[in-house]
Amino acid sequence: MDQVTLKSLAKELNLAVSTVSRALNDSYEISAETKEKVHSLAKKLNYQPNPYASSLRKRSSNTIAVILPEIANNFFSLVINGIEEIAQENGYHVLIYLTHESHQKEADFIRHLTNGRVDGVLMSLSGETDDISHLQELKNSNIPVVFFDRICERLSTVKVTTNDYESGYQATQHLINKGCKQISYLAFSKNLSIDQKRRQGYIDALKDNQLLFREDMVINCGNDQEDNYKKIKTLLSSSQVPDGIFASVELLAILCYEVCRELELNIPGKIKIIGFSNLRTASLLHPSLSTITQPAFEIGKQAASALFQSFRKKQLVLEDKKIELLSELIERDSTK
Amino acid sequence: MDQVTLKSLAKELNLAVSTVSRALNDSYEISAETKEKVHSLAKKLNYQPNPYASSLRKRSSNTIAVILPEIANNFFSLVINGIEEIAQENGYHVLIYLTHESHQKEADFIRHLTNGRVDGVLMSLSGETDDISHLQELKNSNIPVVFFDRICERLSTVKVTTNDYESGYQATQHLINKGCKQISYLAFSKNLSIDQKRRQGYIDALKDNQLLFREDMVINCGNDQEDNYKKIKTLLSSSQVPDGIFASVELLAILCYEVCRELELNIPGKIKIIGFSNLRTASLLHPSLSTITQPAFEIGKQAASALFQSFRKKQLVLEDKKIELLSELIERDSTK
Repeated sequence: MDQVTLKSLAKELNLAVSTVSRALNDSYEISAETKEKVHSLAKKLNYQPNPYASSLRKRSSNTIAVILPEIANNFFSLVINGIEEIAQENGYHVLIYLTHESHQKEADFIRHLTNGRVDGVLMSLSGETDDISHLQELKNSNIPVVFFDRICERLSTVKVTTNDYESGYQATQHLINKGCKQISYLAFSKNLSIDQKRRQGYIDALKDNQLLFREDMVINCGNDQEDNYKKIKTLLSSSQVPDGIFASVELLAILCYEVCRELELNIPGKIKIIGFSNLRTASLLHPSLSTITQPAFEIGKQAASALFQSFRKKQLVLEDKKIELLSELIERDSTK
Repeated sequence: MDQVTLKSLAKELNLAVSTVSRALNDSYEISAETKEKVHSLAKKLNYQPNPYASSLRKRSSNTIAVILPEIANNFFSLVINGIEEIAQENGYHVLIYLTHESHQKEADFIRHLTNGRVDGVLMSLSGETDDISHLQELKNSNIPVVFFDRICERLSTVKVTTNDYESGYQATQHLINKGCKQISYLAFSKNLSIDQKRRQGYIDALKDNQLLFREDMVINCGNDQEDNYKKIKTLLSSSQVPDGIFASVELLAILCYEVCRELELNIPGKIKIIGFSNLRTASLLHPSLSTITQPAFEIGKQAASALFQSFRKKQLVLEDKKIELLSELIERDSTK
């Protein structure tokens, strides 16, 4: 079958191409009767507008981009599922870009997007991102952007996070309640505000409990997992081995389990572990892992909803607003 | 800053818009000197061609689509990372579509794509897909498609899979070697050829070991995880409780662990479990999970490479070819 085009519809109906086009776009210049005829033939022949041509005309791509560090991770894959649900309800497609924690890739993607390929962007910063000129550019090109989780504090727009400071405080308090006296914090990026908040919650909980905080109790991890493994192993092999660990992200908690296995350190007997995590198997681990669990699916839904609301209002610059959802501390055997 | 367009470049250089356009497209009609001037200004002002306009001209979107059931799953997220690596090397963007195992969504996506939004499609079928007319349509629109993992046997094109039959046989033989006499197979979709092959491997291994195969030892699971949980619970609560389980996908193995915990059935003492899985935490589970592990990242790379090869050759209909990669059986405590 040949492709059904405006031209072939026009020919079949004996109308001008421009008439068919205006009928399909519900123009007031076209009679209801003609519109009805055009719509019914278009439906019958399964006419699909050429997305590029109609994008040029309407200046709309019906596509949103999600820029995020990684998907081989339960948190982000759940967020994407949430975004995807809202996008589908709105008849939009979702373009996913993975930065693999690289500031350069993030900047390249955004420069590429500033020319109308997408109508809006949902974004969680790479761990490297410090300079934000690329984000400023995105904003200047009138493409609305909503941040989730790893937000950019310095850009005014809608930002969806969880209560990271309180969660950091609670996780640390939980370890203290279970008898820990020397607690390490495994950080994943000092550039990111969510890391800073989790860390500050940790520091304040130590202080409020009259426990000593030392800078060397914070282990600054990065993107290289082998390197992270070594850092954790060094920590747990030292003379001052901690009796509690608070991991700021899921993968670091998993690495702790792996190191403890290698060093034959009993969890929770020798060391107690809690971490931010959306791991489905958290309860099946040996021992089951105590977690701060973020409402990941809901984060995706809320971030996408804010973006679509801006489309409906034709509001390209979003108001500066924080939406804070609550994480949950789930106690399991790793902190018993 | 205003957006840099062909028009603004032309104005600044005092040239016709068409001259600037042809210079950027390296037309033989334009002198080397003019090209040099245009390119250097375009670079200086960070000119980006409008992707829709240039898509119409070049009939190329520089985008490929990945259509797959789910990403909250370690196998698919690793495959996407592999695809993404190759796409980036080729300067392409990856559009991800999630079918959530729905045939209807899969068909809708494809109808939407048949109009030039993407240059090619990488695809893993939904569990529901039986009628393949939408796939035929895709092929008829001259958009090359490569299947991975959940392939469509009836469509001739490149298909990347693992050795599913052999893996099914090996997994079953492994359980038999460990003393299992009554082994159940947890299927996830009887429409999919990979499920059929894993199942046939299971049946043949039973027969070759003179063990009885009964139809009711195959549990047909679906997309509803609560329903799957119930089916597994019914199986493990029955008078004829199996002593071995072979799960065709990761999530079903996890559900088995959850049911065994509820019913207080010891793994591997009472029941041994092996499953297809790319779970990072397989070795940390209680007990650690024996797996058939697929080379997921490599599957993504190979599937994407086949697609880009077809672009380079300008070959829109791909030859019918199967690429089979090998999975690995990793023995852990769940089958001890």
